[in-house]
Amino acid sequence: MTMERIDDLQLKGLRIIQDSDLFCFGTDAVLLADFAHLCRRARVADLGTGTGILPLLLFGRREDITVQAIELQDELFALARRSVDMNGLGNNIQIVHGNIKAARALLDGVFDTVVSNPPYEQENAGIHSGNESHRIARFEVAVTFEELCVSARELLRSGGRFECIHRSSRSAELFTTLKKHGLEPKDVRFIHSFAHSPSAQVLISAVKDGREGINVMPPLIVHNDDGTETAEVRKIYHRENEE
Amino acid sequence: MTMERIDDLQLKGLRIIQDSDLFCFGTDAVLLADFAHLCRRARVADLGTGTGILPLLLFGRREDITVQAIELQDELFALARRSVDMNGLGNNIQIVHGNIKAARALLDGVFDTVVSNPPYEQENAGIHSGNESHRIARFEVAVTFEELCVSARELLRSGGRFECIHRSSRSAELFTTLKKHGLEPKDVRFIHSFAHSPSAQVLISAVKDGREGINVMPPLIVHNDDGTETAEVRKIYHRENEE
Repeated sequence: MTMERIDDLQLKGLRIIQDSDLFCFGTDAVLLADFAHLCRRARVADLGTGTGILPLLLFGRREDITVQAIELQDELFALARRSVDMNGLGNNIQIVHGNIKAARALLDGVFDTVVSNPPYEQENAGIHSGNESHRIARFEVAVTFEELCVSARELLRSGGRFECIHRSSRSAELFTTLKKHGLEPKDVRFIHSFAHSPSAQVLISAVKDGREGINVMPPLIVHNDDGTETAEVRKIYHRENEE
Repeated sequence: MTMERIDDLQLKGLRIIQDSDLFCFGTDAVLLADFAHLCRRARVADLGTGTGILPLLLFGRREDITVQAIELQDELFALARRSVDMNGLGNNIQIVHGNIKAARALLDGVFDTVVSNPPYEQENAGIHSGNESHRIARFEVAVTFEELCVSARELLRSGGRFECIHRSSRSAELFTTLKKHGLEPKDVRFIHSFAHSPSAQVLISAVKDGREGINVMPPLIVHNDDGTETAEVRKIYHRENEE
């Protein structure tokens, strides 16, 4: 028995198929899709696409892009393909089945942008959920951040950008690993649930072979003190076409 | 001709001698003095003390601490000594003349906390000011961040903290260098002039031999949108004794 549903993304009529038993997309995917740099006719790779949310949201921003997206999990891969077909986007978005570690062999050409909403937790961190789909999406059992960086570097053109969202608590390790693989952190934005709370997540844009020097952007505050969403987050959820 | 003046720190009657021709302390020193962790009876080292502002402000927070502070520049070293004497704090604060690179040989004992408000700019960055005192204080001509980390590590006990303020744009490099020398970034706070402006400076507290994992604190916003100081910054400037 599956718990499938079709959700309206409220963006150019795009819809997505999700299954409550599998890993569903969250706010992080929406914030990353808004944050990522997209040049004209960008060739984009998405490493670990899950339900295919990032390709759809990125296409919603710019219809001139093409996306090749990898997903390891059979069921999520199948859902993502069906979502692409349902939206009639087979010419722009291609979903590929496999491990991020094999991305260079699985995908065609070089890319302007690589995006990823990777597992946040190290394999040995905390208690694993009993659900295998959640476990692979949340813990580094199938791919580590370092392996992700290696694949991103192999896919990108020099000057291309690797865009990801991750745990703020891992920032020092993330920056060190990115630099080690020639992916220089360039734009960084810390996300705070409230203006007075620590940051749980961070958006990072790293440039392949870029020069040292980070733009630490204004903090992204999700909620006002009264618990409502800030104007900026509301705008991200209802962004207009930027072409 | 010197341009000396005596400034009241508005903290327990403490005063400081400054000279307009030399490097004078700024907001960064005040924010760092507030940010630094001070345990009871902390043994503190200050690497590059300038006019001696950090020892005075830290003593203002806790009168049970002892501070050994190093300054390379003859004139600043002399000013700092005179400020300590003027405040009658010779038992708590010792100013030592020399280069940060030789700190381990110049200072006595092991330390709970090492603080530093180091030069922000790499030696080859930008245009050097004609004034030699400003040049040494602002550019890494006398000591690099990596050399500073080496000295901090040599001075600290295991579990002790290295507390510094630096350019946010150098965060990735700073984190990487700290980790390389076994100083694990633990608490990090980005300073933004306004809530909607990028961060220019960052406060970092790193633990010697600490475990990986950063607490990215709420952003420290200096000004309200109307240009006045935020309540938090006003409070830092007029903080109460915490003992």
